[in-house]
Amino acid sequence: MFELDYRLKNDCVDIGCLMLSRILLMKDANYPWLILVPQREGISEVFQLDEDDQEQLIWESSFVAERLMKTYDGDKMNIAALGNVVPQLHIHHVLRKKTDAAWPNPVWGAVPPKAYTRQALAARLDQLQRAFETSLFKPSDPRKALENH
Amino acid sequence: MFELDYRLKNDCVDIGCLMLSRILLMKDANYPWLILVPQREGISEVFQLDEDDQEQLIWESSFVAERLMKTYDGDKMNIAALGNVVPQLHIHHVLRKKTDAAWPNPVWGAVPPKAYTRQALAARLDQLQRAFETSLFKPSDPRKALENH
Repeated sequence: MFELDYRLKNDCVDIGCLMLSRILLMKDANYPWLILVPQREGISEVFQLDEDDQEQLIWESSFVAERLMKTYDGDKMNIAALGNVVPQLHIHHVLRKKTDAAWPNPVWGAVPPKAYTRQALAARLDQLQRAFETSLFKPSDPRKALENH
Repeated sequence: MFELDYRLKNDCVDIGCLMLSRILLMKDANYPWLILVPQREGISEVFQLDEDDQEQLIWESSFVAERLMKTYDGDKMNIAALGNVVPQLHIHHVLRKKTDAAWPNPVWGAVPPKAYTRQALAARLDQLQRAFETSLFKPSDPRKALENH
């Protein structure tokens, strides 16, 4: 059975899910930073997913990327599957702006994460859940996401 | 008409192409580091490709990733579309080992690039072109790749 890695659970807030992937928000207010986690057990590489899941994944990735770019008027999407520390397959989607703290460098290790205030987190959740509003997106309960914050 | 960005041309060696993407080898001997460039004009984001091209891209990405992992007995693939400096869509495929120079950090900015000797580059080209040998892969002329090295 699929279970979310505890480090992803700790570092992120659950936004909701699409058909294949859970969508998490990284607790770093420097950027709108989402993580897609295909809900399949024991997978650490994209090529380990079957072909249908791979096609669904790129569809979901593009859906999230395009909506993020529109919502936050971004300059570039940064999309990455790394997983050297947390091997459970998870794909970073970071909305980049020429004015952000790390531009033009990749975000990993660039600047210390910036905590969300409870209010900023609630606002971000609301923006994102509205950005993804379709019949395909099942939002998580925002009260639950804010519970431990 | 599609034309490869001059910075990608300078930093890489042309290995060959698949149906959609050109495959480049980054001139950094620290890791087997390939870059896939979908040969479509004016594209900087995956979501700008049409749906067929997106499906082809994930197929080609997984083909390259799986063959790299097998050929070099890797510990993890790092796959990323960043493009903050070079906006032409290009997707990094870096074979990571627990013993490599940057592990477990992402490779960008981690350690200075290590030049290939002419001999090491010729060997790498040969390994890679054999790793990708299928009816779908059109290898570039290795003499041309080595010409300016």
